[in-house]
Amino acid sequence: MGSFKGHAVPGTFFCLIGIWWTVRCILKYTFKKHKRTSFLDSKALFHRIEILEGIIIVGMALTGMLGEQFIPGGPYLTLYDYKEGQWVQLMGWHHCTMYFFFGLMGVSKILCSTIRSLPVSLTKLMLSIALLVEAFVLYNHTHGREILDIFVHQLLVLIVFLAGLVAFIELFIHANITIELLRISLILLQGSWFFQIGFVLYPLNGGPAWDLVDHDNIMFLTICVCWHYAFTIIIIGAIYAFVTWLVKSRLKRSCPSEIGLLKNAEQEQESEEEM
Amino acid sequence: MGSFKGHAVPGTFFCLIGIWWTVRCILKYTFKKHKRTSFLDSKALFHRIEILEGIIIVGMALTGMLGEQFIPGGPYLTLYDYKEGQWVQLMGWHHCTMYFFFGLMGVSKILCSTIRSLPVSLTKLMLSIALLVEAFVLYNHTHGREILDIFVHQLLVLIVFLAGLVAFIELFIHANITIELLRISLILLQGSWFFQIGFVLYPLNGGPAWDLVDHDNIMFLTICVCWHYAFTIIIIGAIYAFVTWLVKSRLKRSCPSEIGLLKNAEQEQESEEEM
Amino acid sequence: MGSFKGHAVPGTFFCLIGIWWTVRCILKYTFKKHKRTSFLDSKALFHRIEILEGIIIVGMALTGMLGEQFIPGGPYLTLYDYKEGQWVQLMGWHHCTMYFFFGLMGVSKILCSTIRSLPVSLTKLMLSIALLVEAFVLYNHTHGREILDIFVHQLLVLIVFLAGLVAFIELFIHANITIELLRISLILLQGSWFFQIGFVLYPLNGGPAWDLVDHDNIMFLTICVCWHYAFTIIIIGAIYAFVTWLVKSRLKRSCPSEIGLLKNAEQEQESEEEM
Amino acid sequence: MGSFKGHAVPGTFFCLIGIWWTVRCILKYTFKKHKRTSFLDSKALFHRIEILEGIIIVGMALTGMLGEQFIPGGPYLTLYDYKEGQWVQLMGWHHCTMYFFFGLMGVSKILCSTIRSLPVSLTKLMLSIALLVEAFVLYNHTHGREILDIFVHQLLVLIVFLAGLVAFIELFIHANITIELLRISLILLQGSWFFQIGFVLYPLNGGPAWDLVDHDNIMFLTICVCWHYAFTIIIIGAIYAFVTWLVKSRLKRSCPSEIGLLKNAEQEQESEEEM
Repeated sequence: MGSFKGHAVPGTFFCLIGIWWTVRCILKYTFKKHKRTSFLDSKALFHRIEILEGIIIVGMALTGMLGEQFIPGGPYLTLYDYKEGQWVQLMGWHHCTMYFFFGLMGVSKILCSTIRSLPVSLTKLMLSIALLVEAFVLYNHTHGREILDIFVHQLLVLIVFLAGLVAFIELFIHANITIELLRISLILLQGSWFFQIGFVLYPLNGGPAWDLVDHDNIMFLTICVCWHYAFTIIIIGAIYAFVTWLVKSRLKRSCPSEIGLLKNAEQEQESEEEM
Repeated sequence: MGSFKGHAVPGTFFCLIGIWWTVRCILKYTFKKHKRTSFLDSKALFHRIEILEGIIIVGMALTGMLGEQFIPGGPYLTLYDYKEGQWVQLMGWHHCTMYFFFGLMGVSKILCSTIRSLPVSLTKLMLSIALLVEAFVLYNHTHGREILDIFVHQLLVLIVFLAGLVAFIELFIHANITIELLRISLILLQGSWFFQIGFVLYPLNGGPAWDLVDHDNIMFLTICVCWHYAFTIIIIGAIYAFVTWLVKSRLKRSCPSEIGLLKNAEQEQESEEEM
Repeated sequence: MGSFKGHAVPGTFFCLIGIWWTVRCILKYTFKKHKRTSFLDSKALFHRIEILEGIIIVGMALTGMLGEQFIPGGPYLTLYDYKEGQWVQLMGWHHCTMYFFFGLMGVSKILCSTIRSLPVSLTKLMLSIALLVEAFVLYNHTHGREILDIFVHQLLVLIVFLAGLVAFIELFIHANITIELLRISLILLQGSWFFQIGFVLYPLNGGPAWDLVDHDNIMFLTICVCWHYAFTIIIIGAIYAFVTWLVKSRLKRSCPSEIGLLKNAEQEQESEEEM
Repeated sequence: MGSFKGHAVPGTFFCLIGIWWTVRCILKYTFKKHKRTSFLDSKALFHRIEILEGIIIVGMALTGMLGEQFIPGGPYLTLYDYKEGQWVQLMGWHHCTMYFFFGLMGVSKILCSTIRSLPVSLTKLMLSIALLVEAFVLYNHTHGREILDIFVHQLLVLIVFLAGLVAFIELFIHANITIELLRISLILLQGSWFFQIGFVLYPLNGGPAWDLVDHDNIMFLTICVCWHYAFTIIIIGAIYAFVTWLVKSRLKRSCPSEIGLLKNAEQEQESEEEM
């Protein structure tokens, strides 16, 4: 991980999964609104998608863990060097631990989708645990580094902790698109912040490195994370507009006569949506 | 912002919006109580007011951002001075960031009022985010200043954070006037505390400036913020009494014969109100 | 307050109100269980008690405020000494501020009981605010004192903060005796801890004063507060047993024939009580 | 407690009770799913089990308290040595206090199971209080020790605090297996972490002791606690699989003809289970 690539890989992962979840969440919400039109067997589809998602998450976590272990100079599954009397590559083991919990989340996703007796909220709990464990490990991760390095990681801890907290709250609040989008926006922010950490600590362009002890840089990164979040919110808004437009245009083409009914239905449901 | 005026402007803004929200919240509550008398098409009115509110908030946020950028000595949209190799006016950019999120909140208010498919709770979420972002930026805002300067800003952070937290809780608790008034009281407190910061750091009367390292001043400001809050509570109580009296007197004039029925209705509804 | 008496007075106040609330809460719960027997017009009684309670609380808060202001050596309503250029008796003003918020709570109790249009939860909100303000002021109260003095006050802050938090949670959870007893137990603990602070800082028996810098004393006070809480729990349990026994024995005397019915009713209601 | 045995005893206790609660919680959930088949009077059984559990917990707490007081070199119920002018064995008294609150929880369990008028949630509140008191005492427990010793105890405080918090949340969320399993998993983690503390501070194998000031050890223990938790989750998953398989195979043997009906019932209930 101690490189730009090491931060870009999880960043890309969280950005992709965040965008995918945004699309899925908004699709689900739009389908639910137009529930009288069953132009697609959406429930069965979502079920199969859930399993696929679980497999992809497990695959990504495995890739991450194997990558951390078997890169040149990695620990190669050795934890303690008895000759030297010291721990081997604890940073790598930290990253493995975080990946492992996301793997567990993927496994629970697959199990909850295939075994019907399992409570569905288990997946949400595992997501919350994976995020909180990530925040906990990252919190104890940056001992003895420079002030700016610690600061960018503390911001990451804050983001991940908030994401975990919102996922935990979701356990008790069902089918609330607002809170779901909040959690997803924090996941997306996490992804884009991984890139920012990469840019700060391992500048790509070969330009002058950031001064790690200058307090002005901290002042800038404070607002930088807010701009990332504003950008995230705008991205989600754009996806919302696009998905809603897509669904409406496809509905119009497949069943133009029903549109009039739909509009009335929408207005009726409005008061329920507030719940 | 580094002046009395810079603190008075947002202070005035938050005081005005706080008082307006108090009036609106109590009006809504009183109308709901007398729901059998439809002397005013209140729902449509509230809807149009919502849009107007959004436009005013966006306007105020734009004014704030432009003011911060183009005051004499402001950054003029320059973020980094490549010649000097340093950030330009980061304080100004901090304030812009905070204003921007309130602007986003205004935009979401307009969108949620005009586009019917959007969930209404999105506005509340954006208010909560705007307040929490403000608290976060303010928390990292006062590096290297005097102890009293930091203390008054930390109190502001506490107030803003609590307001954001209550706005977040409101996402899950619907139509509860108590919690709504709590959030509004914290917004009002924020406004009046902005003035207090202005008075402490930039005394108007030309009298002796406050000693920024005297701990007794901290001891006083600790209770001063409580007095501000007590004053806020009394203001809200006065508005409540006035609005209730106004509505009742207008109701009496417009439909004197229904009053007897109303009184019974009130007593019946009483047990529901507790919910 | 800087004496044993100054700590014993609020301690007594909180102990008395805690014990009274325990009795009232358990009475209410027991009456509700035996709701088929209306041997007492309990609802109207509780209503009048509420007003009386409010008047007593306002009276106590006024006494506390006047006492703080007009004791010999008190501030006599002077806040700033312009000759000396310093604040007058800020400690006294701190205590006044705390008393004032409890007074506000009493006023809101009277208003909510007399004016029917006011939401009842307002009283609970004001109680929560009074406790949180107390915790906030106490937190900033002990600057520059010895380590043990700070520690006992920090424990007080913790207790008061938890009581305020539980009162805030009660806003959303209605008619739950468990959470109500939890809040009352923390109020009782506050009262008994006031006495403990008095004993530690101003020993009565003329014996050797506590060593304010010995860390062993902190270790002891850590468990001492737990013992106080255990004692509080046992007191509440004893009151519960006594009140339940009293109500049952009076019920038996007044309507012996209904007892058989009551027993069945109890068993039926059992599953509802869990809610 | 200052030995391996002193940490192994509570560790074993929490592991055993955690495993037992896992089995009970999953059994209850499975029985509830197959509620149409009353092959066992499960409700009465659970009731008797509850009382037995209470008695066992009280017994264990008493054993712990007596052990702490009357081990060779223990305080023998002496709190203050007036000759020496110092507290006697405060560590032992700390442990006694923690055991005492678990004893109170056991007593409340017995009372709530035998006296029908007591609210059942009282037991959950007492469990939450016992855990939070344990966290509070442990937090103030490690003054003046080495950095690694403090760190492992702080992790314990975190685990116990989270368990207490989840138990508190359970007061408001009824019959949710996910949140119940979360609390149990934290109890199990607590048990296994007691063993880890024993291994770190009092190595059994006579090998080289852990370096208490080496920061690499902290880095390792950070992920070690995560591995313990992953292990806990896997154990709970295994118990879930085993219990579900056991119940199904016994159901099949006792009422093979009903299986077809059961399967349908399961599928119908599925949507309710999510609640």
